[in-house]
Amino acid sequence: MPTESAVKSSLLPVDEAMKRILEGLPQKPPEAVSVLDAHGRVLAEPLRSRMTLPSQALSAMDGYAVRAIDCTKVPTNLVRVGEAAAGHPWTGKLDAGQAVRIFTGGVVPDGADAIILQEDVDATAEADGADITIREAAQAGKYIRPAGLDANKGDLLLDAGMTLSARGISLALATGNVSVICKPRPTIGVLSTGDELVRPGETPGPGQIISSNAFYLQAFIRACGGKAVDLGIARDKPGALRDAVEATNEPLDLIVTTGGASVGVHDHVVDDLGQKGSHLNFWKIAMRPGKPLIFGVLGDVPLLGLPGNPVSSAVCTLVFLQPAIAHLAGTEFTPEIFSARLGVALSENDQRQDYLRARFETSDDALPLIIPAQKQDSSMISVFANSTCLLIRPPFDPARQPGDIVTAMTIPPLL
Amino acid sequence: MPTESAVKSSLLPVDEAMKRILEGLPQKPPEAVSVLDAHGRVLAEPLRSRMTLPSQALSAMDGYAVRAIDCTKVPTNLVRVGEAAAGHPWTGKLDAGQAVRIFTGGVVPDGADAIILQEDVDATAEADGADITIREAAQAGKYIRPAGLDANKGDLLLDAGMTLSARGISLALATGNVSVICKPRPTIGVLSTGDELVRPGETPGPGQIISSNAFYLQAFIRACGGKAVDLGIARDKPGALRDAVEATNEPLDLIVTTGGASVGVHDHVVDDLGQKGSHLNFWKIAMRPGKPLIFGVLGDVPLLGLPGNPVSSAVCTLVFLQPAIAHLAGTEFTPEIFSARLGVALSENDQRQDYLRARFETSDDALPLIIPAQKQDSSMISVFANSTCLLIRPPFDPARQPGDIVTAMTIPPLL
Repeated sequence: MPTESAVKSSLLPVDEAMKRILEGLPQKPPEAVSVLDAHGRVLAEPLRSRMTLPSQALSAMDGYAVRAIDCTKVPTNLVRVGEAAAGHPWTGKLDAGQAVRIFTGGVVPDGADAIILQEDVDATAEADGADITIREAAQAGKYIRPAGLDANKGDLLLDAGMTLSARGISLALATGNVSVICKPRPTIGVLSTGDELVRPGETPGPGQIISSNAFYLQAFIRACGGKAVDLGIARDKPGALRDAVEATNEPLDLIVTTGGASVGVHDHVVDDLGQKGSHLNFWKIAMRPGKPLIFGVLGDVPLLGLPGNPVSSAVCTLVFLQPAIAHLAGTEFTPEIFSARLGVALSENDQRQDYLRARFETSDDALPLIIPAQKQDSSMISVFANSTCLLIRPPFDPARQPGDIVTAMTIPPLL
Repeated sequence: MPTESAVKSSLLPVDEAMKRILEGLPQKPPEAVSVLDAHGRVLAEPLRSRMTLPSQALSAMDGYAVRAIDCTKVPTNLVRVGEAAAGHPWTGKLDAGQAVRIFTGGVVPDGADAIILQEDVDATAEADGADITIREAAQAGKYIRPAGLDANKGDLLLDAGMTLSARGISLALATGNVSVICKPRPTIGVLSTGDELVRPGETPGPGQIISSNAFYLQAFIRACGGKAVDLGIARDKPGALRDAVEATNEPLDLIVTTGGASVGVHDHVVDDLGQKGSHLNFWKIAMRPGKPLIFGVLGDVPLLGLPGNPVSSAVCTLVFLQPAIAHLAGTEFTPEIFSARLGVALSENDQRQDYLRARFETSDDALPLIIPAQKQDSSMISVFANSTCLLIRPPFDPARQPGDIVTAMTIPPLL
């Protein structure tokens, strides 16, 4: 582990920063989740059936339950002795010459081994004691769903690692599962810092701006499967960060801050991490936008300190927070990286890995065309919100010409 | 409009059923939604800026605000006369020979037109009145974000039709928007019918099963952007459907029922739609699974009556409910249809369009390989939950051999 002065004196490469963040995030154990709340969760253990489904043989159709042996020669007459509807079993035992009126989902009575469709039967009445005439010969087992057709107790239903779909919920519930063991869901606190921030709905005074990063982050975290906890706005003074975090009762797996990450005397995140019991892992990375990124531990909770500029903050969120959430959830995130043909000229890059806001367009070429936005100022949310990808330029990338092949990362549409 | 007897006497083709459902669903007008609740919603109107952003010129860096004309020859000495931090503007006017200490996000004072980085300045003290030595020449406008750089009041920010992303939320809030005009979000009531059903967590008695369709439907509706209202379980008796719907206070755009759709004397959905003030549009379609599908109007609310078998219900949900939700939301849904190479032999199809539960596998071939599940019983949730697609066979499709090209529809992973 380098000393803090060594950390501060150099810009950490993006890959090294990523590695240190993931190493610094402990993975939580799996947890039991109510099936009704588990849509989209990743199964940490295989799902097994807790019962035999169906538990008894059921009729697949509306008709009459009979003994197949009674209905080999047709037409033939039987006597209706009872009725079995879904949820209302007939509890007697069928004897020779008898039939039980049965409806879809009704339990096939003891003694019966075939269902005759109602359209193949004439009945003197819809009542017990009625004479019925069978017009089609029976086939043993026909239109009967045997016990255990869908699952037997203990059967493997869904493999570990599967994401629970809506149809998986149906299967889990139908087989008697009320909870499933899932990969954990990270709880992430979001804290804005800055004396200039007012809440949405408030009118900013001179020099003030409306807080937006925190709500971006909360939507982002939820879309990535995490739980977001709003820690509010910390003002620019020493200790405000710790005070805000201590004010929540939620156990946090990660704190994400925005702002307060620069070298100015009003930026306190790094200083707060220097206090007893906390720890600065790194500060400042070789990335544009996003150079002042901070990673450390506040008390015993990992802290990712994002820059205050909205676009710097958001690009760091895409590059670092998305894999961090996946890691905390016991999974792995791989960004969608693609090759594209550059539509403009770019001058030589410096020592920082550059993430240019860009749009890609399909073209006649096998590769999509990529057009970086003309203005790349890291305060311009309007440019970022209309970008569909980030063109990634490695440190010291030489000047590029239109038509060169470059690398880019998709911005997921909801993020 | 055909009479009810005509509707009942023939099986409606799938495409015609789809057309009638969409025609029978009124589209709701757009609605204002709080930006904080609008993640993933489709914008019905363009989003425009309600303010100039930034509202005043701001410093992009930590340093000193100066008059560029004072700093053409360096080194040169100035006097620090004030401080401008984010949220704390300095309200004076800069005169010749003066500088104002400024931090990232601070308002550039009147009279200043350049920022000198703090690393290019020596100061006798971090206090007003200090003498400072400028070591780098100033460039007018450098490190200054002019008012309106990101947006001017009234600027178009996001086009109508865009889905609001997390970064779109950031943009909307930062530009003073507290609500956005979105395509409507349908509210859909889900009602199970059947005397055999018990709630999840209850132990089924003889002939009973655990209700699962309704929870599948609720997860499905939410994943498609709708609001699901649980109407509970209606028992198998006339009028129970209407009673359950009248018990909710939620204004519903659509009612979806499962079960009670067959011809049995215990199936009441069709009869309930025959009552005064209600209306049956169609019942029974040329589809497998899903033949007993019902569409009509209960009171003044459209009703889609799904079969009770879980897989029949779910396949109808994928084929009909997904486009219906999109239509109610003022958008259009196109299923993901693809061609695949059949891995097994299939016998000739009858008059019903068949949706076989299947899995597709990538292969060396340009087309994926598709393997229908061996057991296609419409009660088998385990087979459906592990299927990734539905192989679609048109009515009277001839017998097929391994290697034939067939058509299939992806089951979205979360559905």
